[in-house]
Amino acid sequence: MTKIHLESIGTSAPEQFIKDKTKIENAKLRNKLEALQNLLYAESKHALLIIFQGMDASGKDGAVKNVFGSVNPLGCRVIPFKKPSELELKHDFLWRIHQHVPEKGMITIFNRSHYEDVIIQKIHKWVDEETIIQRYDDINNFEKILNDNSTTILKFYLHISKDEQLERLKERLSNPTKMWKYNENDIIERGFWDDYMNAYQTAFEQCSKVEPWHIIPSDQNWYKEFLILSKVVETLEKFDMKFPGLKSI
Amino acid sequence: MTKIHLESIGTSAPEQFIKDKTKIENAKLRNKLEALQNLLYAESKHALLIIFQGMDASGKDGAVKNVFGSVNPLGCRVIPFKKPSELELKHDFLWRIHQHVPEKGMITIFNRSHYEDVIIQKIHKWVDEETIIQRYDDINNFEKILNDNSTTILKFYLHISKDEQLERLKERLSNPTKMWKYNENDIIERGFWDDYMNAYQTAFEQCSKVEPWHIIPSDQNWYKEFLILSKVVETLEKFDMKFPGLKSI
Repeated sequence: MTKIHLESIGTSAPEQFIKDKTKIENAKLRNKLEALQNLLYAESKHALLIIFQGMDASGKDGAVKNVFGSVNPLGCRVIPFKKPSELELKHDFLWRIHQHVPEKGMITIFNRSHYEDVIIQKIHKWVDEETIIQRYDDINNFEKILNDNSTTILKFYLHISKDEQLERLKERLSNPTKMWKYNENDIIERGFWDDYMNAYQTAFEQCSKVEPWHIIPSDQNWYKEFLILSKVVETLEKFDMKFPGLKSI
Repeated sequence: MTKIHLESIGTSAPEQFIKDKTKIENAKLRNKLEALQNLLYAESKHALLIIFQGMDASGKDGAVKNVFGSVNPLGCRVIPFKKPSELELKHDFLWRIHQHVPEKGMITIFNRSHYEDVIIQKIHKWVDEETIIQRYDDINNFEKILNDNSTTILKFYLHISKDEQLERLKERLSNPTKMWKYNENDIIERGFWDDYMNAYQTAFEQCSKVEPWHIIPSDQNWYKEFLILSKVVETLEKFDMKFPGLKSI
């Protein structure tokens, strides 16, 4: 098990990365992604599940839009997970998750995920610690089932600094095009910042058995997008896909 | 791992069991079950998943009807699993299964199940042996997830002799009320009897980590029903359920 200490991982782009140059790179990567997604859909041998987790205002919505915005929506679904419904709460916590995993040929993006069940639920003690520990195990087993069955899971944690979050929350209060995103609750949850960092790093340590977590420094969106795009393109390229020939009639 | 040898397990009722006396016992057990299911639904703390597997004509439909026929259908669902659809085949084999598991308060009965994916698929080599071995592991992990989350799984194998199966298949050819059940394919599958026995016993050995398999001698329906009813009632009684009090307003 790798020890992870989030506070000692930087949240900004290293100096050698230049904004304009990186943005040109991102455009190229988006083109590659578009072509690869088309191939993924045509070949229909692999499924790709993308998981985004991160604090409020860490840029999850933006990552969905700016990384996958130009991909054919026929082969790409976005599933935001909110507060579970009454029926969902009566099931195991992975029940609602499993229903939305991608079939072969598809990319599915989870905006938040089953990791909420070991993050916010742990912090607010909505379930006891024994249950949380059991859930790490359940998550590993669940991800193994998917992985055993042609599904690759890419897990991204969008890592921002506490100061950057404050800036972004303030902007939501002042910028009329962003006010709709403001939620009083975000300020309350911000008060639990250290607990969140602890819960996240424990989850990453416990649940990297099947696929690792990628910690994405996310204070700059262009750098965040560069890292995610690179990883997604690299992963799809490794599938070594081919267009299928004519079906025999 | 317990070694299981199906051929050396009897398929009929032991001599000390008398048909008429057992049938009276069954009626009492059915009454108990009815009351317990009502309590299960009211309390809504446990979920019960019943799995029936067995050769063609082993009496799965009859078990559903005669064990659960008088239970309130509001709290009891039957899910028959047939040949997977194209979309289902594009997912991991447990995807379609997970969607139908019971939520707290419910009894769900699977008429055939995810075990088909390590039985018929193994026998006809629709998937390779490596995949089958992986699936045993996936099944154990999946059943653990359910079990970790308040779901008890009762797995019944309806064990009939090869002679008894022949009698029953013949009856389907001659009895006008049973002809609708006749399927040419059953005769073909009967030819793989020994392969089936082997595949079943391997599955039972490999997949009893979370909950054991119950081998039910099923040549006589009244005895089969007695064993299943007893196990279901015993399991529900162990939940030690109580009617919830008034909700605070």
